[in-house]
Amino acid sequence: MSCDFLALALPGVQKLSPYVPGKPVDELARELNLDPAGIVKLASNENPLGPSPKALAAIQNELAELTRYPDGNGFVLKEALARHYNLNLEQITLGNGSNDILEMVAHAWLGPGLNAVFSAHAFAVYPIATQAVGAQGKVVPAKDWGHDLEALLAAIDDHTRVVFIANPNNPTGTWFGPQALEQFLQQVPSRVLVVLDEAYIEYAEGDELPDGMQFLAAYPNLLVSRTFSKAYGLAALRVGYAASSPEIAAVLNRVRQPFNVNSLALAAATAALEDVDYLQRSRQANTAGMQQLEVGLKALGLSWIPSRGNFIAVDFGRDAAPINQALLHQGVIVRPVAGYAMPSFLRVSIGTEQENARFLQALHEVLSQ
Amino acid sequence: MSCDFLALALPGVQKLSPYVPGKPVDELARELNLDPAGIVKLASNENPLGPSPKALAAIQNELAELTRYPDGNGFVLKEALARHYNLNLEQITLGNGSNDILEMVAHAWLGPGLNAVFSAHAFAVYPIATQAVGAQGKVVPAKDWGHDLEALLAAIDDHTRVVFIANPNNPTGTWFGPQALEQFLQQVPSRVLVVLDEAYIEYAEGDELPDGMQFLAAYPNLLVSRTFSKAYGLAALRVGYAASSPEIAAVLNRVRQPFNVNSLALAAATAALEDVDYLQRSRQANTAGMQQLEVGLKALGLSWIPSRGNFIAVDFGRDAAPINQALLHQGVIVRPVAGYAMPSFLRVSIGTEQENARFLQALHEVLSQ
Repeated sequence: MSCDFLALALPGVQKLSPYVPGKPVDELARELNLDPAGIVKLASNENPLGPSPKALAAIQNELAELTRYPDGNGFVLKEALARHYNLNLEQITLGNGSNDILEMVAHAWLGPGLNAVFSAHAFAVYPIATQAVGAQGKVVPAKDWGHDLEALLAAIDDHTRVVFIANPNNPTGTWFGPQALEQFLQQVPSRVLVVLDEAYIEYAEGDELPDGMQFLAAYPNLLVSRTFSKAYGLAALRVGYAASSPEIAAVLNRVRQPFNVNSLALAAATAALEDVDYLQRSRQANTAGMQQLEVGLKALGLSWIPSRGNFIAVDFGRDAAPINQALLHQGVIVRPVAGYAMPSFLRVSIGTEQENARFLQALHEVLSQ
Repeated sequence: MSCDFLALALPGVQKLSPYVPGKPVDELARELNLDPAGIVKLASNENPLGPSPKALAAIQNELAELTRYPDGNGFVLKEALARHYNLNLEQITLGNGSNDILEMVAHAWLGPGLNAVFSAHAFAVYPIATQAVGAQGKVVPAKDWGHDLEALLAAIDDHTRVVFIANPNNPTGTWFGPQALEQFLQQVPSRVLVVLDEAYIEYAEGDELPDGMQFLAAYPNLLVSRTFSKAYGLAALRVGYAASSPEIAAVLNRVRQPFNVNSLALAAATAALEDVDYLQRSRQANTAGMQQLEVGLKALGLSWIPSRGNFIAVDFGRDAAPINQALLHQGVIVRPVAGYAMPSFLRVSIGTEQENARFLQALHEVLSQ
């Protein structure tokens, strides 16, 4: 006799819709019988430069040890991060991507009867991680597609354990400044954990955006989440990290899987952190590519949300799904964001100059049809 | 003002003791100021052969794609596993090590008011994953250090959602046969998920132990968990997998992190699965090493629990902690198992011939002091 294991799952899990990732090149190639080599993927905010040579060298040095478990404490990488940000080792938690950090937060502090507050058009993992543990996600309407920090504050109630905010925000690219963050943190009750997701902060040069790390000393309820998947170019390896008070880190360590970050990821991330040249090139390529896309989109008569990330949300003023389909047939993968309540938009990652040109040309053809 | 974020954590998390991994070589070297090159680690049931050449080659082929996210569906590896075990793709779930599989099970089906049944002296992650989600762990006394399957059956009640059993069991090395498994599965209520942890099954050659995969068709409440960390030699990369009914796999996919297995792991595991020669050598080295250790332990007048894993639990008949400490000072790391209610034992992984000899020599010296 067979049983319904979905009905036996926890209530939150029964209602879950899993995360939908950007379509992999190989998958599109299989589906539409296209040559993978001719496909351009601008769907997952990946670094178009290829990997850091220092990260590659660090991986080679580690290959002889593949049969050994990773250092579950991630000592060497944590030490490098602590040095880089002038923090203590005890303030750092490593994750299998920053996705892992977000889930650890939910597993530690959220459950039935509790809630997490976040913005509309925010990263899909906030509602998924919240719902999976049976907590309520309180979604606050956005202001000009960005976080309405005052409305987020107003949404906090006695059952709120966590506020998720992202700066810049994905998929909108919107941002807020240092003063806005400071005012926000001052008003959040000290018993509410603020998760400041800075996955794209390395692209947001200059002083328009705050450096979350600078606020840790004053706000022991702040957790800053970052990743090696974007500007550091290591999405394949899965390394993210949290900086927080040692107390928060100690709780995360209880729910962390013992060997959550693999050995090659630990070695590569440690090397990537010191590869100043690669980071600089990532930023420059992104700034140039953003300009290239903005010029091209303007020429096509399109509008977009100004972005400080490595992506741009383009507004087509009508259902964007058919445009996305037509782009796929041209071998160009971008990201539909209807699931983010943005059905008229497509999110486009900044690629190489050639990839951006290929996208603009394909878009021109699609819109001319 | 600072808040107590441990007191704010979920009740189960507050009571958690995190998993204690085997001591890394570098950590012991730092602590006791030893030369890492002279340290022998037989503490984590790692493969002593070094990595599979085919797995290494597969990694090299994947390095150019480090900036890209892994295939979140793990299509290629799942296809290889489906072929290897004559299963459907939809029956397979990939994990960041099989630890990830065990935690997904807890996140999907366990919570407050529910329980999981498992044996005394069973893998530490069963109680940790159960407690972390606020469920009760019902620990059933062992019989001759192994699973008492009848007592496990008797412990199942209306609130039981999961039974964790391991064959062979870690850290004891004990096992049960095909008939015992069949009788057990016949009697477990169909609404209770049986997690059969076969992390070490590849070492347990012959027909004394059942192949869990053969029971999937008849028992839709069975999940078989396996890993690439042991006989396939890829502990550093974190790849485990579950085989189950498609219905169970679909639920696990809801709580799975979208990119839980990294790209290099996917590629290496796919190659390792086809490296028949490496697996054969792993088994032979293990059989020879087990014999070497048994002869050596006998010569030292020690007893042990007969094991079908790549490790052996040695009984010193008295508190083994001082013996463990003395071995550490000799540069030999084995695993204390007092946390498994086995304070008079040390668990020793099978190493290379030289490593085994080095351990036996160090033990001889320690016991002569």
